[in-house]
Amino acid sequence: MQVLFWNERTQQLGDGARVFDPLALTWRDDAPEHDGKAVTASEALLRLAATRKLRRVPIGIIGPRDATQAQYDLAEQMGAALARHGLQLLCGGKNGVMEAACKGHAQEGGMPVGLLPDEEWHAANPYVAIPIATGIGPARNAIIARACLVLVAIGGGVGTLSEMALGLQFNRLVLAMADAPEVNTVERVADVDGVIARIAARLLANA
Amino acid sequence: MQVLFWNERTQQLGDGARVFDPLALTWRDDAPEHDGKAVTASEALLRLAATRKLRRVPIGIIGPRDATQAQYDLAEQMGAALARHGLQLLCGGKNGVMEAACKGHAQEGGMPVGLLPDEEWHAANPYVAIPIATGIGPARNAIIARACLVLVAIGGGVGTLSEMALGLQFNRLVLAMADAPEVNTVERVADVDGVIARIAARLLANA
Amino acid sequence: MQVLFWNERTQQLGDGARVFDPLALTWRDDAPEHDGKAVTASEALLRLAATRKLRRVPIGIIGPRDATQAQYDLAEQMGAALARHGLQLLCGGKNGVMEAACKGHAQEGGMPVGLLPDEEWHAANPYVAIPIATGIGPARNAIIARACLVLVAIGGGVGTLSEMALGLQFNRLVLAMADAPEVNTVERVADVDGVIARIAARLLANA
Amino acid sequence: MQVLFWNERTQQLGDGARVFDPLALTWRDDAPEHDGKAVTASEALLRLAATRKLRRVPIGIIGPRDATQAQYDLAEQMGAALARHGLQLLCGGKNGVMEAACKGHAQEGGMPVGLLPDEEWHAANPYVAIPIATGIGPARNAIIARACLVLVAIGGGVGTLSEMALGLQFNRLVLAMADAPEVNTVERVADVDGVIARIAARLLANA
Repeated sequence: MQVLFWNERTQQLGDGARVFDPLALTWRDDAPEHDGKAVTASEALLRLAATRKLRRVPIGIIGPRDATQAQYDLAEQMGAALARHGLQLLCGGKNGVMEAACKGHAQEGGMPVGLLPDEEWHAANPYVAIPIATGIGPARNAIIARACLVLVAIGGGVGTLSEMALGLQFNRLVLAMADAPEVNTVERVADVDGVIARIAARLLANA
Repeated sequence: MQVLFWNERTQQLGDGARVFDPLALTWRDDAPEHDGKAVTASEALLRLAATRKLRRVPIGIIGPRDATQAQYDLAEQMGAALARHGLQLLCGGKNGVMEAACKGHAQEGGMPVGLLPDEEWHAANPYVAIPIATGIGPARNAIIARACLVLVAIGGGVGTLSEMALGLQFNRLVLAMADAPEVNTVERVADVDGVIARIAARLLANA
Repeated sequence: MQVLFWNERTQQLGDGARVFDPLALTWRDDAPEHDGKAVTASEALLRLAATRKLRRVPIGIIGPRDATQAQYDLAEQMGAALARHGLQLLCGGKNGVMEAACKGHAQEGGMPVGLLPDEEWHAANPYVAIPIATGIGPARNAIIARACLVLVAIGGGVGTLSEMALGLQFNRLVLAMADAPEVNTVERVADVDGVIARIAARLLANA
Repeated sequence: MQVLFWNERTQQLGDGARVFDPLALTWRDDAPEHDGKAVTASEALLRLAATRKLRRVPIGIIGPRDATQAQYDLAEQMGAALARHGLQLLCGGKNGVMEAACKGHAQEGGMPVGLLPDEEWHAANPYVAIPIATGIGPARNAIIARACLVLVAIGGGVGTLSEMALGLQFNRLVLAMADAPEVNTVERVADVDGVIARIAARLLANA
């Protein structure tokens, strides 16, 4: 387990020997200060988020268009939590889980990106801040899986399964919540805080 | 179960009430002749193949680059069986299961198409007759899943799993052989003849 | 020519008979107030930008990786002008014109999106706020052309030409600055203000 | 200018010092026989075609869906000429120039491949032998441009222009016939024989 220190004066994250570069998402060796406050990875994200210097490599929330209420609520909370931690949401930009994730994200000040299968941006759900109409249909799932550092599946059928499998193929961290499809090697996480902790660990691990 | 009749004189397939259009892969109602010989769906394919009039909608064979000998042998037999039944092979055009499928297909007179992730055709295995360099990387899997009427998985990991899931998402018939990944609703077929029978049934079912 | 009124109290844009919906980018007929201040389309954009309610449908800046100093400077000014007018920049995320556009945009508070050909986000130039690694190579140009409401070409060779042609094919507004390739029907605009005026007119024209 | 010799006994093409490998489309140095008959590049293609050993790297014919009669006739002749010379046609699989090219190619025994923008193969014109439904819309143009060794434009508007520009970007040989769009560096060829000669030269030039 990595030990992390937040230096309030320099607004920098250190691990006792290195300083974290929030733009490159890497650690470098030059002259750290050791007197920071010990923080968890999730807390570190919160501090970095406040500096607004963290590179916004997307985190994906994937799941069905026809979401249950439970899936919708969870996706909304997940989207909100991403925004609070300064994390960029990327999703498919349509209904159900995608809409809920955008809604939560936007309400917490995020600017959700929707990578649409459609040819025109109007097809986005109303909470998408930045609609990207790809015009390539469901093949855009392969781009979502490629572009995201972490994919969080909330429920879902074969469409979600294909995105999860693509994510694994591309060496992304794939997390499953609720009733997401069972896939070998995919970690199942119980709650939103657990997901944030896993994302934070990945982001701060020289990924 | 569909009853099929092959009329040797007209070189047409009927079901007692309709005639099969091998170009459109549909049945039409005009003036069938009833005096043909009863055939199974697989036999019907063999007869249609001999007429060389069957539309070559691709059948996909998918699986790992690092194939075991057993997977390689099975893919080679599967590719050969497709060619003998006048079926067009489409695959990823690389090594392992893809190479074996192309090898078997070409040896039986087929012209295997390889949809390559690479930017240049030279990246194809030596048995690909028609190399199609897409330049889009593993995202070409989404096109293989879309283009094929039936996908036959022979072994495989997450890459194969993503193709299977994409196939299901696109309402393709997805069949699993040997140690292909477990996916809900994917039918596991024991041998080459069983796969041909399933493909024949799909092709002749007004798909 | 459209006459536009900005109502400072309601923070709404009207045209005397309708009110502009900044989220849907359309005009609706309900109960306009007529007492606003007459503004140009570019001024209207500035006002809407300040409300932070304008939907961020991307505007693309396209051009060569090997930019001349003049192209680089112009792209930087263009990117900055987009940010000042609340417009979202989308580009290829690489060097030259793309880097300059991102640099200008970021310096004025924008969050430039880079749609990368590469498989990993690290390939983005340092000014890309939201890197989207597509992994599909130069085929991502087709997505840039599709996703952007307006494409602004600054210099460029055949790569830029293909994006311009794709934009025309998708009915996007394509504008050429500096020494961008000659294409029939592509409007050549002399300076940054002229481009902003053309974008504003398009955005406010119920596009 | 390359001097080519066809050895009727060995069914091999030589240039006096090397032997052409029709599968790899390269020349190798091992033990040529010099007593062949001198042939032009186009004649060499005809001989290689008869051996059925030439790798079928696609040649693209591109042009508008709404073709004039003159464009249709020319595309049909071009498709036929490709087939006679053992060359594989790849096109967009739709109407107009694409249909004509497939028609001519199929009538001369070719098996035209149609790379469709659509989600289902039924959208192909009736002369497409091997329909490949990509489901990615007009973005499939980027794949056509990538996959073809040579692109032959017959007429066309911005769609054709984008394919031509993509072809140039990917270092393909791009030829323009009839009223194809003007593009810098694109060679305009007057007739079918001229196109075959240019393709033959490219194919036999260690491309």
